[in-house]
Amino acid sequence: MNSETAENKTDKTTKTPVTVIGLGNMGSALAATLLENGHPTTVWNRSAAKAKPLVDRGARLAATSEEAVAASPLIITCVLDLDALHAVMDPIAGSLAGKDLVNLTSGSPEQADEAAAWAGSLGLGHLDGAIMTTPPGVGNPEMMFLYSGSAQVFEAHRPTLAALGDPLYLGQEPGRAALYDVALLGLMWSTFTGWLHGTALVGADATKATDFTPVAIRWMTHAVAGFLDTYAPQVDAGRYPGDDATVDVQIATIGHLIHAAADRGVDNALPELLKATMERASAAGHGSDSYASVIEVLRGERRDTLRV
Amino acid sequence: MNSETAENKTDKTTKTPVTVIGLGNMGSALAATLLENGHPTTVWNRSAAKAKPLVDRGARLAATSEEAVAASPLIITCVLDLDALHAVMDPIAGSLAGKDLVNLTSGSPEQADEAAAWAGSLGLGHLDGAIMTTPPGVGNPEMMFLYSGSAQVFEAHRPTLAALGDPLYLGQEPGRAALYDVALLGLMWSTFTGWLHGTALVGADATKATDFTPVAIRWMTHAVAGFLDTYAPQVDAGRYPGDDATVDVQIATIGHLIHAAADRGVDNALPELLKATMERASAAGHGSDSYASVIEVLRGERRDTLRV
Repeated sequence: MNSETAENKTDKTTKTPVTVIGLGNMGSALAATLLENGHPTTVWNRSAAKAKPLVDRGARLAATSEEAVAASPLIITCVLDLDALHAVMDPIAGSLAGKDLVNLTSGSPEQADEAAAWAGSLGLGHLDGAIMTTPPGVGNPEMMFLYSGSAQVFEAHRPTLAALGDPLYLGQEPGRAALYDVALLGLMWSTFTGWLHGTALVGADATKATDFTPVAIRWMTHAVAGFLDTYAPQVDAGRYPGDDATVDVQIATIGHLIHAAADRGVDNALPELLKATMERASAAGHGSDSYASVIEVLRGERRDTLRV
Repeated sequence: MNSETAENKTDKTTKTPVTVIGLGNMGSALAATLLENGHPTTVWNRSAAKAKPLVDRGARLAATSEEAVAASPLIITCVLDLDALHAVMDPIAGSLAGKDLVNLTSGSPEQADEAAAWAGSLGLGHLDGAIMTTPPGVGNPEMMFLYSGSAQVFEAHRPTLAALGDPLYLGQEPGRAALYDVALLGLMWSTFTGWLHGTALVGADATKATDFTPVAIRWMTHAVAGFLDTYAPQVDAGRYPGDDATVDVQIATIGHLIHAAADRGVDNALPELLKATMERASAAGHGSDSYASVIEVLRGERRDTLRV
């Protein structure tokens, strides 16, 4: 008991002061989590009314954006887009030198590169981040926050960032977190749509989504994830041994899915595209390879060798 | 020590004798696992040479299919297709009454229905099954074996089936295991292709598949699986509150993915289809709903009310 009390006291006095700019659902969740973790937290938003619930929980509301950035060594921004970030920061550009910026505004890899160059020109430390959860998931240590950019900024603020979720540092390339973000969202939409197609299929034979889904989740988290673990080194090696299941076998099998779905009036655009993609891989000589070889046709012809 | 020895002895004397017909990679893995678990195991294959490794491990090789089915109360079949099953079983149809058949041959739901009717006409107990793993995964209790058909056959042989993997019984409808099978494979191919697209995307900026994939697996198993848990009851209720992320927001976000992939020469057929599908959902009035509402456009127009 005593040691816990002492720890809490230490927390209050030593935790990094943080300023959060942008108080939409996500920015508010970030500020609330920092407050819960004992960080002196200053907030600012274009419309000050959004700050009220946070002020009630102990946040300090800055009167101006300049006052907001002056209040803390670490500035976390979560605004609509890069234009909105510039609209807030450009007028106070002269007061940013020596501060650290962790920008959790959604954007493209190119925008992250641009923001890093802009921050560098102002003497502002810069880390770009992508929040891989929804606002209610902020503060859950299972949820990933991806970061890229300055290693110094990441290391200096790792304990603070760890309060928001599990911080993963992806390297100095500023755009990498944003690139992972869209890549992971693409995986999510593909998975969602495959799951909904399967749910529609079994639903046509009177199976409830809540009966099918636990089986689907178990399938994904054990078997499918295991295949990805097997296939990732194949992709890096550019060799795709098809021991367990070849592309040609899977082309035959997806025919059964398409047939069963067509019989039940379920839209087959997704499995038809998947089949056509497998057929392109087979035509390119990968019929006896594993499914991982399909990446060879996704990479397309326009390889930019400067990037690779 | 003593109790373990006693248990092993009991195993050998009380475990159900099983006949395995069809000794391809999967059938051989099934027979080997039954042998490892102490089941008196009889095997038969059209080409007897395939039985050699199993005979070396203690299996009894039946000289004829009739002798094979006579040897055990439980017959497990794993042959090429339903035609192959009939080719083996029809000539000995008269000797099948009172036996139990667990058919692990891949097939359509309609073929499972047909096999159940055929078995019923012969007085043969019938359970259809789908093996949700590859041959090396047989015997791993994390891997799912899906069954549908006779509840009596399932209950009578549950301990034997549990040696092969985790047995899940999906109900009396004979075709349900086969329908789940193709639905889960569709989810797998969608997930694979979304992962390969993301891997190609980050790979264009020099990220290795083996660096991206652990993050992708964590994203799938925590965040994405969590969304499916949230969305499944929405599908059953036919109401899709879009609190966390609406279809319209995701249509805007997938534009970033398509742009980043196009910049890097990555094939965009999959995200373009996903976007078009979301746009159909939005046009149907689901723009402010969650992604789960996309099922409304996948179900299509040809609803067979007899099935639902």
